[in-house]
Amino acid sequence: MNAPGPALPPDEVFDWLDADAATRTEAGLTHRPRPRGSAPAPGEIDLTGDDYLGLARDKRVAGATAAASLKWGAGAAGTRLLGGSLELHAELEHELARFLGAPAAAVFPSAYTANLAAVTALSGAESAIVSDKYVNPALVDGCRLARGDVAAVAHLDPDAVAHALSTRRKSRALVVSESVFAVDGDAAELGGLVDTCRSHGAALLVDDAHGFGVLGDGGRGAVHDAGLSSAPDVVTTLTLAGALGVQGGAVLGPRRAIRQITDVARTYGHDAAPAPGTASAALAALTALREEPDLPGTAVERAMSLATGLRTAGLRTSLPAAAIVSLPAPSAPAAASWVDACAEHGVHVSRVTPPVAPDGVTRLRLTARAGLSESDVDTAVKVIAETAPRS
Amino acid sequence: MNAPGPALPPDEVFDWLDADAATRTEAGLTHRPRPRGSAPAPGEIDLTGDDYLGLARDKRVAGATAAASLKWGAGAAGTRLLGGSLELHAELEHELARFLGAPAAAVFPSAYTANLAAVTALSGAESAIVSDKYVNPALVDGCRLARGDVAAVAHLDPDAVAHALSTRRKSRALVVSESVFAVDGDAAELGGLVDTCRSHGAALLVDDAHGFGVLGDGGRGAVHDAGLSSAPDVVTTLTLAGALGVQGGAVLGPRRAIRQITDVARTYGHDAAPAPGTASAALAALTALREEPDLPGTAVERAMSLATGLRTAGLRTSLPAAAIVSLPAPSAPAAASWVDACAEHGVHVSRVTPPVAPDGVTRLRLTARAGLSESDVDTAVKVIAETAPRS
Repeated sequence: MNAPGPALPPDEVFDWLDADAATRTEAGLTHRPRPRGSAPAPGEIDLTGDDYLGLARDKRVAGATAAASLKWGAGAAGTRLLGGSLELHAELEHELARFLGAPAAAVFPSAYTANLAAVTALSGAESAIVSDKYVNPALVDGCRLARGDVAAVAHLDPDAVAHALSTRRKSRALVVSESVFAVDGDAAELGGLVDTCRSHGAALLVDDAHGFGVLGDGGRGAVHDAGLSSAPDVVTTLTLAGALGVQGGAVLGPRRAIRQITDVARTYGHDAAPAPGTASAALAALTALREEPDLPGTAVERAMSLATGLRTAGLRTSLPAAAIVSLPAPSAPAAASWVDACAEHGVHVSRVTPPVAPDGVTRLRLTARAGLSESDVDTAVKVIAETAPRS
Repeated sequence: MNAPGPALPPDEVFDWLDADAATRTEAGLTHRPRPRGSAPAPGEIDLTGDDYLGLARDKRVAGATAAASLKWGAGAAGTRLLGGSLELHAELEHELARFLGAPAAAVFPSAYTANLAAVTALSGAESAIVSDKYVNPALVDGCRLARGDVAAVAHLDPDAVAHALSTRRKSRALVVSESVFAVDGDAAELGGLVDTCRSHGAALLVDDAHGFGVLGDGGRGAVHDAGLSSAPDVVTTLTLAGALGVQGGAVLGPRRAIRQITDVARTYGHDAAPAPGTASAALAALTALREEPDLPGTAVERAMSLATGLRTAGLRTSLPAAAIVSLPAPSAPAAASWVDACAEHGVHVSRVTPPVAPDGVTRLRLTARAGLSESDVDTAVKVIAETAPRS
């Protein structure tokens, strides 16, 4: 049988990847962050990552990982369905649900797979999915894996959601949004969104990754703050790696929604279960959050100080709803130089480029942390403003 | 605007999930494994999970998790692209590549997301994907997320692969297979498969989750055993949660393939990076594997003893290529009773039902471990045979 494609020597099969890489490099879209060491350098200010409360390096949380690993082992030794379900997972699911006032929860080794599970299990061939077009890649991939009709509608536009729901061809519907959007830190108005859903017989799925641990009473998040965490028609996803500082994700909601996810979601049943150390660390992080209910508010205040300072210095910024602030950059290469210049002055910031920057505009992305002092904020503002590209 | 769907009270929006659950229950397709405690009960024989070498509870591996967590913290505090890249990740990628003789590697918090990354980043709108139709859910979802044409061909049938490649409409092609298939433990003949790929200008992606740590020289896996780990046209995915006993996944292959994955794969850049404790534990597990190169062979011998014993007792089994043995059951409910009856006699086995059992036949799935004694194997065979449903 002859090949229809060109007959290629094995070492030319991936030649196309070099052309792809050259295109990315030319557009300034390659990201090669230098791996960091175990401890931050003294005097450096870190505005990267999502460790809003400083719990990733908290001794109570790290100590829980260590203790659980020594007691339970380094891994769960199987998937949740095939030998890897631990009492620690059940305990974490119970405590997460209790903390947030939700009926039930399921935990995952990755927030990405938690989102894939929630979107796919709670929709189907009979479902319409209506998604804010700026949702994160995990939710987008969840929509693409779901078997129903998908409409991606204008960002933060309840009328667009209502229109898509009212013109859908399927009887069932699932509306998908983030609470606080990962790139700019802007927020959906969840009360209005759920009203729209309810007028149209739709369920609501909210990724609260950047609200959980930051917004609401004691960091219970945006869904709790909107009074929706026990609602029969609302499901929440979140990360255990953001404010909690660990690794993994979770889905919370009505018992029957969680049962559907644990019964049918492929990323729940067919991926290794979370390691004992990460499950135990997440439990310890929840305890730390209960013990320090003011930490989340401090992170939000620091974000607002950052944004205010940068605006006073003449820069454009997003208006932070939680702990994320973004600044548009003139171009991807200009943003890369800006990041490097900040780092030379000891201030570490991130860059978000298309296609993740959903409108094609490259940004600097800053995340505030509860542990920043007012003086850190002043220094960061000064450095970011002084190194800003002239546009 | 009026809703086209039924106007539903919020607590009826998820009513359809109850109907779905009732259908599953009636068919015997619900799985509710009881969470297990921190230590196995004495005298019990565990044939569930994928901890083939017993490293999940190994003190060297668990100790590495503990030490790294105390030094680095419980979490990586960001995604690989946004603040979460650690020197530990780079070290693990280097050591994995070195162990397997591959040019480069990328690690992930989940093997599921590693597979999604590899399939999507190494294909595209210009690509045909030809996949064995029995590949695991992660590879299936990877194919569904990829933007090219997908052909799912007969299981372990090189002629079917050749036919699909020769009739493809796209110039580029990626062939997708497991080395050892997760459900039955049967194996692809990788030498023949790569020859087929090369005759048709296609790249080969192999999920070696159940070969790595079990097959080949010192557990270097099926791809290494076939002499393909440094091939310019072959990419390998694997789990860090199977034989290594930890959590997470990895992709190994030519430098330009790994660069493509770390540049564009959404599950690499947009999910939290692996926790320091799991990265360090995987490094310790690699060291343990180097120190005990005979462990993998012992696991394979135990699997063969299990299969031989069960066949001698009159049962049908798969022929294990690595450490997995399966037995067909008359029905899903009969298999559930069989699992329960084995457990009552202290032998823990798993059940795989459709749709994961890809031909619709429910199986018992047993995984052999290097730590099983010959007497454990005899006991397991006796219990499984005596509790077998009469068909």
